[in-house]
Amino acid sequence: MSTDSDAVTAAVLVIGDEILSGRTKDKNIGTIADYLTAIGIDLREVRIVPDVAEAIVEAVNQLRARHTYLFTTGGIGPTHDDITADCVAEAFGVGIDVDPRARAMLLERHKPEDLNAARLRMARIPDGAALIPNPISKAPGFHIGNVFVMAGVPAIMQAMLDQIGPGLARGAAMLSETIEARGLPEGTYAGRLGEIAGRHPGVSVGSYPSMTQTGFQNRIVVRSKDAAALGAARAEIEALVAELSA
Amino acid sequence: MSTDSDAVTAAVLVIGDEILSGRTKDKNIGTIADYLTAIGIDLREVRIVPDVAEAIVEAVNQLRARHTYLFTTGGIGPTHDDITADCVAEAFGVGIDVDPRARAMLLERHKPEDLNAARLRMARIPDGAALIPNPISKAPGFHIGNVFVMAGVPAIMQAMLDQIGPGLARGAAMLSETIEARGLPEGTYAGRLGEIAGRHPGVSVGSYPSMTQTGFQNRIVVRSKDAAALGAARAEIEALVAELSA
Repeated sequence: MSTDSDAVTAAVLVIGDEILSGRTKDKNIGTIADYLTAIGIDLREVRIVPDVAEAIVEAVNQLRARHTYLFTTGGIGPTHDDITADCVAEAFGVGIDVDPRARAMLLERHKPEDLNAARLRMARIPDGAALIPNPISKAPGFHIGNVFVMAGVPAIMQAMLDQIGPGLARGAAMLSETIEARGLPEGTYAGRLGEIAGRHPGVSVGSYPSMTQTGFQNRIVVRSKDAAALGAARAEIEALVAELSA
Repeated sequence: MSTDSDAVTAAVLVIGDEILSGRTKDKNIGTIADYLTAIGIDLREVRIVPDVAEAIVEAVNQLRARHTYLFTTGGIGPTHDDITADCVAEAFGVGIDVDPRARAMLLERHKPEDLNAARLRMARIPDGAALIPNPISKAPGFHIGNVFVMAGVPAIMQAMLDQIGPGLARGAAMLSETIEARGLPEGTYAGRLGEIAGRHPGVSVGSYPSMTQTGFQNRIVVRSKDAAALGAARAEIEALVAELSA
């Protein structure tokens, strides 16, 4: 992975016992990874933690200090195990209470007499946070400092991400090209591929095997923010694959 | 999440730029989560890190210190970006070299003249590690201390996990039951569900919404290692759902 000092970097924190138990299979990590990559933000780290306050607070504080942005998913519903907002407030050392703006959003969906204590939990927002509207079920996410707090339900997370995206700082877009090595075994090209990677320090070179009915199928992926450097590395790798496939 | 001092706990570390770029969507986390839950091991934390030595070493050392077991996936192939074995050796402060047992395994698949330097990378095993055979493509995983190093290709990871499983310490199996709340809104039951959770401290109570064509469908999941405690909590929740659905 190439690094540069002015890169825009990010971490994702997935919050929820249900992911760690296997009951729910996460779909948000891949969605966020694709989204950030497309706009030139380098996703550098992902963590999944349970619905335990100490674990959430620790992860929020570590990850927000390390990266330009931290995106969290999960734990902002109305039930007792939805503790993300309180944990983010604790991580930032700020107060948290029912936010009139968030309460107004909930009233777009719920009658005033249905806005019970549980539902009002979804309007608890840390002091100083901006809201992220939720066009689907109204209960908002929020952002405070460099932390964006989103829902865990994939459709709602996606809707929130679409709103956050335009306001994010963007790095140079990461360019990527794939060279199909097909059935050419990794072991036949790995040595020389490493030499090519060594000659192109501004290019990340990866080899990715996958298994199919007919055996391994391999792909080599080159990634760089510099189109000329990318093209030069790609040309060398294409020549290598052609030579070894002949 | 309930905790107990004699619980067997685990972390998973997924290693690979391709997951963080979104190019490859991880399937191993969910597989391992299901596997561990079924044998009474609590998966407490997951991290995804890039192919960067410092990030891998740091995560290995943090996670192996915190949990009974650490399972890693990815980065044990023949190419230059496969650096997991070297990083694990560094984390443990031990040497690493071509292991004769691992070399013999590779010779089951490759002719001696095809065992080039790149392929021999797959036989580099930290000093003192035990091997995890790979019935599919022969290049082994390994375990050292409480760390199990597995391949990233899902079929191979699964085959390695199947071999590791019988040797793992097991906790009491986590029992789980699901109460279908269907279209009953979370906000109508969240308050009383929280009260029930408070009365059953040995039971983890979660509410999980999902979106369907017809709106939210909610499920309440109770989890405990104590069957009687689980049954008592479940009965109260079933009564609550029945009352509110009437």
